[in-house]
Amino acid sequence: MDLSLLAPDRERIAAGIASLAQNFTEGAQEGWTRRVFSDAYIASREWTLNAMLDAGLDAHIDYAGNVVGVLAGRNRSAAPLMTGSHTDTVHGGGRFDGVIGVIGAIEVARRLRETGTVLERDLVIVDFLGEEANPFGVSCVGSRSIAGLLTSTHFDRTDDTGIRLGDAMTAAGLDPSAALKQSWEPGSLHGYVELHVEQGPVLERSGSAIGVVTAIAGIERLMASFVGRADHAGTMPMAMRHDALAAAAAAVVIVEREGCGAPVHGVSTVGRFESSPGALNVVPDHARIWAEMRSTEVGWLTGAKRRVVEAIGIEASSRGVDLVLEWLNDQEPVKTTPATHDTIARAAGDLSLSWEAIPSGAGHDAAHLAHLGPMGMIFVPSTGGRSHCPQEFTDIDHIADGVHVLTTTLIAMDRDPHD
Amino acid sequence: MDLSLLAPDRERIAAGIASLAQNFTEGAQEGWTRRVFSDAYIASREWTLNAMLDAGLDAHIDYAGNVVGVLAGRNRSAAPLMTGSHTDTVHGGGRFDGVIGVIGAIEVARRLRETGTVLERDLVIVDFLGEEANPFGVSCVGSRSIAGLLTSTHFDRTDDTGIRLGDAMTAAGLDPSAALKQSWEPGSLHGYVELHVEQGPVLERSGSAIGVVTAIAGIERLMASFVGRADHAGTMPMAMRHDALAAAAAAVVIVEREGCGAPVHGVSTVGRFESSPGALNVVPDHARIWAEMRSTEVGWLTGAKRRVVEAIGIEASSRGVDLVLEWLNDQEPVKTTPATHDTIARAAGDLSLSWEAIPSGAGHDAAHLAHLGPMGMIFVPSTGGRSHCPQEFTDIDHIADGVHVLTTTLIAMDRDPHD
Repeated sequence: MDLSLLAPDRERIAAGIASLAQNFTEGAQEGWTRRVFSDAYIASREWTLNAMLDAGLDAHIDYAGNVVGVLAGRNRSAAPLMTGSHTDTVHGGGRFDGVIGVIGAIEVARRLRETGTVLERDLVIVDFLGEEANPFGVSCVGSRSIAGLLTSTHFDRTDDTGIRLGDAMTAAGLDPSAALKQSWEPGSLHGYVELHVEQGPVLERSGSAIGVVTAIAGIERLMASFVGRADHAGTMPMAMRHDALAAAAAAVVIVEREGCGAPVHGVSTVGRFESSPGALNVVPDHARIWAEMRSTEVGWLTGAKRRVVEAIGIEASSRGVDLVLEWLNDQEPVKTTPATHDTIARAAGDLSLSWEAIPSGAGHDAAHLAHLGPMGMIFVPSTGGRSHCPQEFTDIDHIADGVHVLTTTLIAMDRDPHD
Repeated sequence: MDLSLLAPDRERIAAGIASLAQNFTEGAQEGWTRRVFSDAYIASREWTLNAMLDAGLDAHIDYAGNVVGVLAGRNRSAAPLMTGSHTDTVHGGGRFDGVIGVIGAIEVARRLRETGTVLERDLVIVDFLGEEANPFGVSCVGSRSIAGLLTSTHFDRTDDTGIRLGDAMTAAGLDPSAALKQSWEPGSLHGYVELHVEQGPVLERSGSAIGVVTAIAGIERLMASFVGRADHAGTMPMAMRHDALAAAAAAVVIVEREGCGAPVHGVSTVGRFESSPGALNVVPDHARIWAEMRSTEVGWLTGAKRRVVEAIGIEASSRGVDLVLEWLNDQEPVKTTPATHDTIARAAGDLSLSWEAIPSGAGHDAAHLAHLGPMGMIFVPSTGGRSHCPQEFTDIDHIADGVHVLTTTLIAMDRDPHD
């Protein structure tokens, strides 16, 4: 088969990305913001559904809010293939993160149909609900549901205003209890492949067109709460203070230092810092930080967790500040399936595209889908390594290369009974 | 004269303090909150005015919102004495800070009248407007006005919502331009004495009933703004980040360390910390801290300012983070007048009260009044050294001792042509 016949339509992909960015963003927010459960996001689900229907898929929105489209194969009883990603963004996010994996998957279906390429197996395309971190502390809501990893405990998580995730889902027209029961059986998937922007600087620096993902980093998230004592900032001697803000700041420095001392692909970040009362002349009595550590190496994560807990504890107790540590939403590192990794690498090679093996520092829906069968991921370069910001950018040529590799990978997996 | 005849009425003082706390606080806020320009504060000004009128003073509210009452002396042309303090609080503040100096001053006037003690000079009692730090960055609004230290530049300072101080004053029924012109001439005051809670732990620890203030600390306030770059917290390697939050946290640790290394009565505090965007998986691109350093020693303050600027600059540049430093509202240390200090100490000794010389870490209206003539301050103990918090407490016996010393000090100053 002439692989070039399966090359995607660049203009169609670019138009799809632009349509989501221009028509479905939260107007009052910076960048291209389309957060889960926002009006813009809910409206965009219909657009995605229609895009799948236009592409000839049998499409619907499931109980968890996933937009699911099926391209029927010759053998409807064979274990299907799945691809997809997400279209929600962080606050102030970009146009490409997740989006290219959904628009790209729909383009795969279009090209297969346009070239008369009928797969043996069904190809299931999913735009998973709410992949990004949200105020409920539950990322990847949709892919967890399909992978059987969503529990009723997740629904009881609340945002800052006390709203439960389950109630937010119901308000968005979804059915939380049915979302618990729609999961697929482990082993029921012939394979899952996801196309995504790298969101980091590695491919751009090495000049590779394609990243073949080796593993998805595990994430340990920590909320550290500090309670000290409010005093007049002019009259209370330094040695008698219980300064919660200073203890929290020292903890930030500890978290940063832990990441800087990590082996390759270990990072640590404090993304949020709060303190009160916030008066210039009052020693702050409350502070809280939200930190995360990521690595593909579970050994480093475990050690980092222990070291950070110990060091933050010393900073708090040396200031007479009470400390409560809460670990949220931890996620083990997930290795991609070696056979799938090799299939993607061969597909890139067959298209004469430069590729390299690369770990993923970001979490992905793919990490959850790995519970259902073989899993792999295709990365394309991010300009300047920027992501989760309005400046996020990936050239349409790179995106088209990724979609091309996704297409030929899926065809190869379809033909391989053991993949 | 039998000094015990001038002893104040404890119940009357306690009732005055309780009345302000119970009837004039911002209901929705914690503690005893009565911030400048709040409805509760504006309503409380009428209460203070009536309390002065009840005490037999010729009282009015001036252009800057000060409540001013005059107890006429025998010689109306002699340079008057002044005493007073403030009744505004910080957010979540206490019942005693400032309040005992106003209620105490009114009690002085009552006892002078009740005992038929007529002073040679007018005694002017002032409840100064807005002593505490406010969102406009202008503390001591009322005392600056009387001392001739308020300028039109102060009126152009804005709060977080962009409202000018001048406009907030007008909205509260005051007259900013007239407030600039009502100042007293330097040298026009025979003396100013202010009674205040210590707001620190020194008197309680030493068991002294009275603190005779030696100096009021100078304050250097710094706003440091950090601008880095937003990146995905999972994919951007530590060495390539521009983490504004981490740079700001390192700055907090620097400010704290500077205070801990200070000589006696040098303190430094970061009271407020802000950062954005605040998502758990985004490297923060913006952060800002508000810091202050206080000391009675101008030499230490100057050195601390230089050291802090240098060290914060290194933390920012090592992270590739842009830094803007803005110094706000600095205030030189002010020594109390030695003769006034001695008069207060003698007055305490004559009443058989233990006393000690003590510096003030907090700023006070008295620092501004020092521009008009001799100035002194009387401190009474704060339980646990607590202040600027709901737990702030001073025993009524200590307050009554302070009022008694204030009364006899003013009588002594009234009689001394050189004081």
